[in-house]
Amino acid sequence: MTDQLVQAASQDSRPRGADERLRRRAAAVLPGGMYGHQSAVALPPEYPQFMRSGLGARVIDVDGNEYVDLMCSYGPVVLGHRHPAVEAAAAAQAELADCQNGPGSVMVELAELLVNTVQHADWAMFAKNGTDATTICCTIARARTGRSKILVATGAYHGAAPWCTPRLAGVTAEDRANLGHYTFNDLASATAAAAEAGPDLAAIVVSPFKHDAGFDQELVDPAFARGLRELCTQTGAALILDDVRCGFRLHLGSSWEPIGVLPDLSAWSKAIANGHPLAAVLGSGAYADAAASIFVTGSFWFSATAMAAAIATIGALRDEGAIEAMDRAGTALRAGILEQAAAHDLEINYTGPAAMPYLTFAGDRGHRLASTFAAAAIRAGAYLHPRHNWFISAAMTDADLAKALSATDEAFAAVQARQHEGGIT
Amino acid sequence: MTDQLVQAASQDSRPRGADERLRRRAAAVLPGGMYGHQSAVALPPEYPQFMRSGLGARVIDVDGNEYVDLMCSYGPVVLGHRHPAVEAAAAAQAELADCQNGPGSVMVELAELLVNTVQHADWAMFAKNGTDATTICCTIARARTGRSKILVATGAYHGAAPWCTPRLAGVTAEDRANLGHYTFNDLASATAAAAEAGPDLAAIVVSPFKHDAGFDQELVDPAFARGLRELCTQTGAALILDDVRCGFRLHLGSSWEPIGVLPDLSAWSKAIANGHPLAAVLGSGAYADAAASIFVTGSFWFSATAMAAAIATIGALRDEGAIEAMDRAGTALRAGILEQAAAHDLEINYTGPAAMPYLTFAGDRGHRLASTFAAAAIRAGAYLHPRHNWFISAAMTDADLAKALSATDEAFAAVQARQHEGGIT
Repeated sequence: MTDQLVQAASQDSRPRGADERLRRRAAAVLPGGMYGHQSAVALPPEYPQFMRSGLGARVIDVDGNEYVDLMCSYGPVVLGHRHPAVEAAAAAQAELADCQNGPGSVMVELAELLVNTVQHADWAMFAKNGTDATTICCTIARARTGRSKILVATGAYHGAAPWCTPRLAGVTAEDRANLGHYTFNDLASATAAAAEAGPDLAAIVVSPFKHDAGFDQELVDPAFARGLRELCTQTGAALILDDVRCGFRLHLGSSWEPIGVLPDLSAWSKAIANGHPLAAVLGSGAYADAAASIFVTGSFWFSATAMAAAIATIGALRDEGAIEAMDRAGTALRAGILEQAAAHDLEINYTGPAAMPYLTFAGDRGHRLASTFAAAAIRAGAYLHPRHNWFISAAMTDADLAKALSATDEAFAAVQARQHEGGIT
Repeated sequence: MTDQLVQAASQDSRPRGADERLRRRAAAVLPGGMYGHQSAVALPPEYPQFMRSGLGARVIDVDGNEYVDLMCSYGPVVLGHRHPAVEAAAAAQAELADCQNGPGSVMVELAELLVNTVQHADWAMFAKNGTDATTICCTIARARTGRSKILVATGAYHGAAPWCTPRLAGVTAEDRANLGHYTFNDLASATAAAAEAGPDLAAIVVSPFKHDAGFDQELVDPAFARGLRELCTQTGAALILDDVRCGFRLHLGSSWEPIGVLPDLSAWSKAIANGHPLAAVLGSGAYADAAASIFVTGSFWFSATAMAAAIATIGALRDEGAIEAMDRAGTALRAGILEQAAAHDLEINYTGPAAMPYLTFAGDRGHRLASTFAAAAIRAGAYLHPRHNWFISAAMTDADLAKALSATDEAFAAVQARQHEGGIT
């Protein structure tokens, strides 16, 4: 054990043996022991790598430790784990068939439901990854315009294909040759980037708000959103809203509907089927022919089970007032956390929408205080993240909220103690 | 109705109303009415677009018409639809959790099982699409070598991302800038393409056999496979075997193991979990560090249900002798079809492995006879494909085989009648 692990273990009464054994086995058969966004290798050692089960807003790791879930599987779980209506719909469809020689009738029903639910959508396509959806949006925009350049905000995450993955290992210069960059909420920078792309501008991709991992979040300035819309309309480029992370968490429609800005194309995944694997591209009628002209497909893109789950998810989001429930729970969590931080005399930034918050500590270089906070929180039974925004599900009860706030209170105490010990080591 | 539809309907006693109604609704909310490889738009009008259910080697469309399944969902179904052990494993896992804050223990178990089952594999990564797997292989090869060029066989299908999709709408020149081409089974062409790439050659991608859609299939020449292996070893490039379509249909290991040729990296999907959505990259130890150095991920890549299904699938493939069962059923189908073609005085090419056959008619321009054959076969209760290889599952019983051959006999009669009518219109 490293000193860090010994120190962590000494403060930690949770059983950890099953996780440790699985980590050792994983190190032998998975590159780096784990990969991708769910790798716990870069998290504080108190985090479990392997999870066993979930129900509502509670999750249980492979050692049987239970947590209030403030990550929601990094976004897919929106109604809570194993939502009864969603799981029943998925199981009923699976009893008939999932992956067949053609789609099931649920594909048409889901497309109709999305077109009726999302204001800008006249049609839908389905895939499996958020990256599929953002990539398809770009391909459709290029097919319609005959142009190549795509603008993205510096630092924004739009997936993990070579054209957009945040790490450059294995990526060629050509994979990025058609990307331009602007600064989120800075319309002048977008206008300048569009001018640089000139007549070759195919699309501007934008997230509903700035949620770059590890940074304070930033809500969109409505004037910026309207300006991007106008810029795209003027130049004939597509406005692509990347609603993969936010979609169906903030609004029962695309996330800029409340500010009155509609994209031409939008990318969806994560919450669309409450954890069942599905992604979608929605588009306006002007882009339908271009969408029909490209060839994209996947072995499981027509599978019925995840589509049945999506229909049930969207129905439950509407019928159970889930958007409002997430906002209420998130607002209560924010109030509690702001109060606790003040009581512990800690200066924090608690940013983003109530249902998708992120916490940083003032002057916290290298996320050291955030890591101390997260480690203490997970020991005390709240699963949050030191370098990624959190997600609040609609399943949060008052008891869940109380347990989460009890854990964050202990976590603030741990940060305060660390500061009093003479700073960060 | 078009003349073609009227003519088809007059020969067809099957109910079709539900499919027609769904097609009309789909036309309003899906680009082109349907997209991707499961679009029935380009199939004879006798084909259903929408499917209801499947069991074993039988599938049922939304109008209740039953077919012997010779397509197996375009490859994912290998043990037959709704295989009891696979569905039980998936349901048991789904009862606990699917998409969580971290993978379940099944991820380690599956990686260990694959490493123990596939000879060249020292490690595994998981994703959702075959395209994810082939793309990740290329990214890993580039990360390890620091080079850019990838060689593929002309006409081969390796997925539907911009770098490889067979249709160029929405694809930029830069997406293809690092591709070179060789001819399958022509080592001299591969050597020449490698020489052209020179010191920038990162990888050669190859399918286990030539299964380009719409063409007669071609088994691999073992000397070609050995030559590619040697070429990669000499140049330091990665040999990438695209086993997405063939994997776990021809051999319980990577598909070139029987001829003694091992790739550095292999791409898997389709049959790996008997229809549950999963893809995998397997690699040798020399590529582990490169695999750990890239950033690839997806919201559902760590989901446990499909992994539990994969463990059960690979176990059943082994315990039930499924590879041999598919070969036996495919061999019997081939014998029957060759006999029927001769009896109808029709010259056909029946190519590929027994378990993945494809049928063409000599001199059949535009697949007209193939379409007549397919249309008659589906009316008679066999679901096969006029322009894509077929798949034989391990669930084929003697009764299924008899029904399939009864349908193909009618289909040959229809082709013969069409020829006697004075050729193709």
